[in-house]
Amino acid sequence: MDERLRLDPDLVLPILEAFVRHEVERAGFQRAIVGLSGGIDSAVSAALVVRALGAGQALLVGMPHRISSAESVSDGRLVAELLGVEPLEVPITGMTEGYAAWAGLDRTRAGNLMARMRMAVLYDLSVEYRALVVGTSNKTELLLGYGTLHGDLASAINPVGDLYKSQLRQLAAALGLPEPVLKKAPSADLWQGQTDEADLGVDYTTADAILFRLVDERKTIAQTAAEGFDEELVRRLWERVRANEYKRHLPVICKLSDRTIGIDWLYPRDWGT
Amino acid sequence: MDERLRLDPDLVLPILEAFVRHEVERAGFQRAIVGLSGGIDSAVSAALVVRALGAGQALLVGMPHRISSAESVSDGRLVAELLGVEPLEVPITGMTEGYAAWAGLDRTRAGNLMARMRMAVLYDLSVEYRALVVGTSNKTELLLGYGTLHGDLASAINPVGDLYKSQLRQLAAALGLPEPVLKKAPSADLWQGQTDEADLGVDYTTADAILFRLVDERKTIAQTAAEGFDEELVRRLWERVRANEYKRHLPVICKLSDRTIGIDWLYPRDWGT
Repeated sequence: MDERLRLDPDLVLPILEAFVRHEVERAGFQRAIVGLSGGIDSAVSAALVVRALGAGQALLVGMPHRISSAESVSDGRLVAELLGVEPLEVPITGMTEGYAAWAGLDRTRAGNLMARMRMAVLYDLSVEYRALVVGTSNKTELLLGYGTLHGDLASAINPVGDLYKSQLRQLAAALGLPEPVLKKAPSADLWQGQTDEADLGVDYTTADAILFRLVDERKTIAQTAAEGFDEELVRRLWERVRANEYKRHLPVICKLSDRTIGIDWLYPRDWGT
Repeated sequence: MDERLRLDPDLVLPILEAFVRHEVERAGFQRAIVGLSGGIDSAVSAALVVRALGAGQALLVGMPHRISSAESVSDGRLVAELLGVEPLEVPITGMTEGYAAWAGLDRTRAGNLMARMRMAVLYDLSVEYRALVVGTSNKTELLLGYGTLHGDLASAINPVGDLYKSQLRQLAAALGLPEPVLKKAPSADLWQGQTDEADLGVDYTTADAILFRLVDERKTIAQTAAEGFDEELVRRLWERVRANEYKRHLPVICKLSDRTIGIDWLYPRDWGT
């Protein structure tokens, strides 16, 4: 891992905990809900929620699909157990199979559909339990657009969205998350054998080092390549960041009036409270 | 209708058409997709797409549920026929019934789930047809939060989001939309007999007149009430605008780095192209 991506968990964890506590309160909630995938990101989000609000206020939900790997399910349970929470389990197979086109979808479309069914389950349960939906998308994914719009990218608050995957790994280790969760290859588990790094065509350590230079240090492609990275890869990642900007935006509204939502109606989320 | 809400369709329609054409092109698409509900808003959005791109580039999708009214389905078909488009029909009943908790949901939760299933269908078809998702939420709905987050509120571009319902009605009439669509009581049709105006506790004509004063004219509650509106109603609508601000925001990310998405990473959606 790049030294510049090293963080101090003793400094960062209390900030993230306070963020979760304050944002949940500001939204008028006492509980929060996290979808447990069995991976590191959702495990860290879940741990932050438990630290911020207490295990009794944390709703952790596994949402397996028939094609989910057995490890995703069991690793999610391990995380919940470690955090002292009895997880809910809500399968999404029936929802996807209720879509007439399901059987004919390629794996990308099937994966997006699954992610959106999980979003729908989490948002539905958030009403039943009066629990705020806490996101699990990290900075690497958000920049590269490696996530489903209105699927796993959907949340009310996201404590891990400014942390690269390499940084989340450090937090996960500091939090003492279960070994299988720490060790396995990151995967969206949307089809058998899927791994993030095969999808992205680059390992997270390299991607994070490049993105940190381009985004956080505002270096050019040439400056980044000059530090020893393959210029084609640097260019490809930057192009991917650009091409996925739309996933980081609200719908664009055609301006006609003096005050248009998203253009000159730009209040903070909790104005007036 | 309040005179201040009167608009000139000959002025506004070309602006909206150009918006659709340019935004679809900027996103690198040639086609657009609209969910047809049988109501005025989606009919106007669909008409704008057809005017902007041509009937051959417009994908119109009816997504009936077992509990949808027969009129919603037939009115959607009338709109498509008028526009010269053969609509797709993709039922969502199976998707909702695949959710284990479906039968026990109250009507609000059931309605939100239905709206999210429709979003998932539209976004899935948008890949198959390479068609941009065009939104149908009007300004009244967006301000009052009368819509489902990651459901009907989800889109890439929204040509009607800066038009109050009363203004959309004028456009709908100018566009020559079918009589049944123009005349019927607005309804999300998420349960039998539902009407927007019963849900909101106010008719659109009054709500729009009040919101125009509060939002567009920046009047206070007292100033608005002094123009002859019930002060309690004015206060209630303003409180609703405030309480639903969260539906007009992206997930809040905890800032840790020098460049945080949504805080100081704020590029336009199509930077670098």
